[in-house]
Amino acid sequence: MESFVFYNPTEVLFGQQQIARLAERIPADARILITYGGGSVIRFGTLDEVRQALHKHTFFEFGGIEPNPSYETLMQAVAAVKEHQIDYLLAVGGGSVVDGTKFIAAAACFTGDDPWDILSKQAPVERALPLSCILTLPATGSETNSFAVISRKSDHSKLAFASPRVYPQHAVLDPTKTYTLPERQISNGVVDAFIHILEQYLTYPVNAKVQDRFAEGLLLTLLEEGPRALATPTDYDIRANIMWSATMALNGLIGVGVPQDWSTHAIGHELTAAYGLDHAQTLAIVLPVLLDVQREQKKQKLLQYAERIWGLRDGKDEQRINKAIEKTREFFEMMRVKTHLADYGINAKDAAEKVVASLKRHHMTALGEHKDITPEVVARILLMA
Amino acid sequence: MESFVFYNPTEVLFGQQQIARLAERIPADARILITYGGGSVIRFGTLDEVRQALHKHTFFEFGGIEPNPSYETLMQAVAAVKEHQIDYLLAVGGGSVVDGTKFIAAAACFTGDDPWDILSKQAPVERALPLSCILTLPATGSETNSFAVISRKSDHSKLAFASPRVYPQHAVLDPTKTYTLPERQISNGVVDAFIHILEQYLTYPVNAKVQDRFAEGLLLTLLEEGPRALATPTDYDIRANIMWSATMALNGLIGVGVPQDWSTHAIGHELTAAYGLDHAQTLAIVLPVLLDVQREQKKQKLLQYAERIWGLRDGKDEQRINKAIEKTREFFEMMRVKTHLADYGINAKDAAEKVVASLKRHHMTALGEHKDITPEVVARILLMA
Repeated sequence: MESFVFYNPTEVLFGQQQIARLAERIPADARILITYGGGSVIRFGTLDEVRQALHKHTFFEFGGIEPNPSYETLMQAVAAVKEHQIDYLLAVGGGSVVDGTKFIAAAACFTGDDPWDILSKQAPVERALPLSCILTLPATGSETNSFAVISRKSDHSKLAFASPRVYPQHAVLDPTKTYTLPERQISNGVVDAFIHILEQYLTYPVNAKVQDRFAEGLLLTLLEEGPRALATPTDYDIRANIMWSATMALNGLIGVGVPQDWSTHAIGHELTAAYGLDHAQTLAIVLPVLLDVQREQKKQKLLQYAERIWGLRDGKDEQRINKAIEKTREFFEMMRVKTHLADYGINAKDAAEKVVASLKRHHMTALGEHKDITPEVVARILLMA
Repeated sequence: MESFVFYNPTEVLFGQQQIARLAERIPADARILITYGGGSVIRFGTLDEVRQALHKHTFFEFGGIEPNPSYETLMQAVAAVKEHQIDYLLAVGGGSVVDGTKFIAAAACFTGDDPWDILSKQAPVERALPLSCILTLPATGSETNSFAVISRKSDHSKLAFASPRVYPQHAVLDPTKTYTLPERQISNGVVDAFIHILEQYLTYPVNAKVQDRFAEGLLLTLLEEGPRALATPTDYDIRANIMWSATMALNGLIGVGVPQDWSTHAIGHELTAAYGLDHAQTLAIVLPVLLDVQREQKKQKLLQYAERIWGLRDGKDEQRINKAIEKTREFFEMMRVKTHLADYGINAKDAAEKVVASLKRHHMTALGEHKDITPEVVARILLMA
């Protein structure tokens, strides 16, 4: 096992009727900006519930944060923070709203020239506004981590930053809030979380038994509950298990002390930036081919994955790995996320060219746990996708 | 799944050479009291390493905290805190030193008449000194939780308290520090951690798949690595896996949203108070019989345990449960922790009388996840032990 630091100070309030509890935890004299996305938190009453819980607080609202939250929109929120002298942010929505709110928190306190530097130059986040969140969509894990991914429309960039200063202080996870999600968002969320786990798990073995078994436990849970969540959308336990799995998938825990390979995400981000695909769609396209191409480097863990997740114990190594990759693809399709570029009307050659060009522009030319996923390998992956 | 709050702000520094890193995190102007137990941290150089790392800090030392740390000793440390105007505590040792230091942290700031009230009356901990720890013995999980168990020699009491104010700020977990532990402490540590997990796992099902699988992952890891740790004491990965399992066993994670049954601990504490047995010895005596006696109430989870941990899929329910309990007992014996009162020269009838009397004195007359482990049931368990 490798050495590591693990720190995660977010308080999770899990279950129903937690929004009132959250309100008690926000300082009484805070000037709050509630941030949210589209209409669903209005339509299904969550925003009203938040307003009611905060009736003794001073708060303002900022809506319209889009999926793949944009720098352009978020800088409007930063202007609102300054205008209303906001000192606390409360995100209500899915990973995009939480990610966007983390950027608002950091950008509002940024003393450099342009807050975009936090993303493009990894300028340090010296200070950030405190934030909490109420999660309505289990997927990204953003609710209890220190990462955010932000897009810029003007040049089709999609970049990430991380800082311990943007951990949410409190995160409300109420499984009933996911009952009204469109099927596509649950599909995407389960696939996104599943791939987060694989990117921390499918590298090479370092004898980290706890991390491996935790990762496998989450994978098995998503495999069991994902299809059930589509079939019976208002089953509390199914939604609770998915929600908690998605949080655990990216709160740092399964990734400590082990190598990681975030190349699927890196390639996926460029696909979203170039073609506007959903985040999870890009991952479902890239991952199966990437595992195929990197099968030698990932051999030991792929065999462990084949055995412990898919019960594949017989046949040659090669066959078990093929089967495990095939079953992974089938699971994404069963979750109703298509796994080929062609399914989205995208030409593979065009994708390879565009993605390679932007990865080079973003200096991401040595991806993967061995840094051997070069632009040439990425091109090969996309041509096979 | 039940609703829950999960919060764990302790920063874990895992691996070698982390003590210097910890020193950087303690405020430069802190007045530190280093707390420790017996001679092993002196003998094996850990205390020297701490002194060196803190050479720019102001620090004092307090040694002699015993296993099952006593109120009497700890109140001497509280006097030292006051004398030297200490404002930061640094525990160096195993769970007893960490537990004891948590009590010192709370008692030093206690404004009531007698800090013993924190234990006997569960007087609220309004304030506590900040503390960190350097763990040398994987077992209790105290390094990243908010619990402590303290004994009082004068009346043979052993009681617990909990407060979010006594979470260690930072915890150094260096597996190499465990190489020099006597075999008995590793044996005890593995058994203690194993039973912590079972007490959060073997109750009744609430469809909390992540918590169940995390618990199972920890159990399997301890089963594999425990005997190996006895055979090859200086294998880094084995010790690392045990250390991380023991921390995860009681950092709150596997216990959220599920029923718990701490009756084995409650009974065990009384056995230690009455006969001076090691903590883990008492648990290894009580647990197998308790599972046997409570087999109906715990049936579903016992069957899951039998299947997922011991691979028992054939035969009648009754037989699989018998076999799982038998194998659990065998594991403790393989870890060289004896599982019968007679092995320690204790008369069962005497133990039943003494333990029942003190449980009644401590108002612990309805234990277990169903509160159906009454003094009569406890007596039955001990007579069978």
